[in-house]
Amino acid sequence: MLLNRAQLLTSPAANTVFTTVLTRGPVNRPEIARITGLSSAAVTKAVKPMIEAGYLEEMPQQERTAEGAGRPAHPLSVRADREFFVGVKVTADELIGVVTDLRAEVRAAHRIPLSGRGVEQVVGGIAELVRQVAGEYAAHTHHIGVSVSGDVDRPGGVVRYSPFLGWRDVPLVRLVADVTGATVTVENDVKALTIAEQWFGEGVGADSFALATVGVGIGCALVVNGRLVPGGYGVAGEIGHIPVAAGDGPDCHCGGRGCVEAIASEEAIVARAREAAGDPALDMAGAIDRAHGGDAAVRAVFAEAGQAIGLGLAAMVNLVGPERVVVSGEGLAAYDLFEEQIRAAFTRQAFGAAARCPLVVRPLPWEEWARGAAAVSIQSLFAA
Amino acid sequence: MLLNRAQLLTSPAANTVFTTVLTRGPVNRPEIARITGLSSAAVTKAVKPMIEAGYLEEMPQQERTAEGAGRPAHPLSVRADREFFVGVKVTADELIGVVTDLRAEVRAAHRIPLSGRGVEQVVGGIAELVRQVAGEYAAHTHHIGVSVSGDVDRPGGVVRYSPFLGWRDVPLVRLVADVTGATVTVENDVKALTIAEQWFGEGVGADSFALATVGVGIGCALVVNGRLVPGGYGVAGEIGHIPVAAGDGPDCHCGGRGCVEAIASEEAIVARAREAAGDPALDMAGAIDRAHGGDAAVRAVFAEAGQAIGLGLAAMVNLVGPERVVVSGEGLAAYDLFEEQIRAAFTRQAFGAAARCPLVVRPLPWEEWARGAAAVSIQSLFAA
Repeated sequence: MLLNRAQLLTSPAANTVFTTVLTRGPVNRPEIARITGLSSAAVTKAVKPMIEAGYLEEMPQQERTAEGAGRPAHPLSVRADREFFVGVKVTADELIGVVTDLRAEVRAAHRIPLSGRGVEQVVGGIAELVRQVAGEYAAHTHHIGVSVSGDVDRPGGVVRYSPFLGWRDVPLVRLVADVTGATVTVENDVKALTIAEQWFGEGVGADSFALATVGVGIGCALVVNGRLVPGGYGVAGEIGHIPVAAGDGPDCHCGGRGCVEAIASEEAIVARAREAAGDPALDMAGAIDRAHGGDAAVRAVFAEAGQAIGLGLAAMVNLVGPERVVVSGEGLAAYDLFEEQIRAAFTRQAFGAAARCPLVVRPLPWEEWARGAAAVSIQSLFAA
Repeated sequence: MLLNRAQLLTSPAANTVFTTVLTRGPVNRPEIARITGLSSAAVTKAVKPMIEAGYLEEMPQQERTAEGAGRPAHPLSVRADREFFVGVKVTADELIGVVTDLRAEVRAAHRIPLSGRGVEQVVGGIAELVRQVAGEYAAHTHHIGVSVSGDVDRPGGVVRYSPFLGWRDVPLVRLVADVTGATVTVENDVKALTIAEQWFGEGVGADSFALATVGVGIGCALVVNGRLVPGGYGVAGEIGHIPVAAGDGPDCHCGGRGCVEAIASEEAIVARAREAAGDPALDMAGAIDRAHGGDAAVRAVFAEAGQAIGLGLAAMVNLVGPERVVVSGEGLAAYDLFEEQIRAAFTRQAFGAAARCPLVVRPLPWEEWARGAAAVSIQSLFAA
């Protein structure tokens, strides 16, 4: 029975129907069929187990319209409080957790420091954070989403490689499930954020969009033809490794040269700012201070970083043609120091009509990243 | 009746069913349902008008297997000679035409020179070429596909901008239909070639792949999540305008700097070879001769072009993650002069597992491009 229910919930039609009700609801079955292009029978078949499981509910009957005269038209709505989801974002020194409802609205948030980056410490920390953040929602919380930067095998539930944690091939889903008893998903953090945008944010209704993040790394996730781009070999969206200065740029840790990340990551900016300022102890906050204080050499470092980011964004837009680009990430703390260069380089390098693609700049606090992890968990209920 | 038939033929299910029979046939309905994930009812509904219209045929009944015991299992096959299609590729100085069957197999080919690039001359030339190439197939040829480089609005049937023809907003579909009486499609030439690969070539069964062309321009078309990437603003696949040498590279006609095309297009190579050789009259053939003759300065021009192409391919693979890349185009005449640099730059710059993406190098004669135009015409029968 459970298996059967799960199969009915996780079909392409179920996925489409759920997102339609989520974003357009309350909406009745004939409208769902019209919006999605699914047959009435397919809509009815997809809806039934979702109502039985309590994820959707029928609202009181609407007045009959001329269009639907004589036929009942119970609009459907997502039951936001049917179930709650914990999302956890793992950073280098703390864990950020949120509880969301079925609409991915954040109901509670909590952070705990990480005592170390070992697998046991992180898994123990996640279990502790889940206990603390779930609180009053604990009885109705059975799903946990975790997001980590790096190479993540979501179907396999494995963190294949996380440079900043120093992890290789860690079966995180199994480990967290063992200590929490919950159903767990794990996803790359930028992809998770993108799924949250796709299902619940800027990406709703867009056939294509991109989310780029600027900070410790320069990352990007892409939705094309309505779906996240997975990469044939697990690699996609590596905007940080577009070689914008292959001839005269700095070497990159990836083995390439002149990559966006080698010029504009936090580490690269700090290294170049130290050199520019002649101060080997300078950190990012200090570099920002110096630039704000008018240090021309350090300002130039940020300007070059902005130019590299703008060129990388333009190269991505020229290739993939997203309808819009959201730019975010912790690096936006210094955004005033390179926004002008990002936009100027983007505009100059975007090809023809691609220059019309809007760059939407949005600082996203860590809690939004944690919400992304919860969104993946919600999505896993319905997406095949 | 005709409208109804057309609607039934051009649905997402029809598209899927036809390509399945095309690539896997002979295949029976239950197998089609299994392969495509469509319901039996949807398969039956999609197949019926295709059989009635003669595009599919039922083969003699197979022996009954244990699995299908007691149920008839008429395998379906594409009737290749049900109808024929003319494909025309427009180049700067000649028109190349082919006749293909419903499987996109070339049955006849012909070329005629263009007396000029004016709209009237090209349209008149296409009409003449269609008459000559259709020959014995004329009675069963009602569809013409035309492909042109540049910005093409396929749904609108308009060549929005073709730099080498000097055209803007030419309603080519209507003009060619007026003089031929056929149903006409027009598509960008690289996209047309990619559709041929997707339906009938390297791309069959691949969820993602890329086709890059090297020559007068550096172009690319992408299939991601099973569909051609259209670009939110009509721009996508512009691998030629990835800035790989934004700091120290040459200006590009697009307004950017250090673009792949500004280093590796035929025009760029010739300009740089002229300078290197001190011979302002040098053409491409002459540059290739000099390089083959051992002229180190001219060889370096080709090497730099190869490096730029390899970096552009790596940037594209890092971003989009195709399962494979086909590299083609008239520029491959000089391929021995830059293959090594293409592969070396690609390997160095590809990020992690993306380096496993195979680069399949294939010279494609103009007739293959014309076949691409015919493939678009075939696809337009079934794709919504």
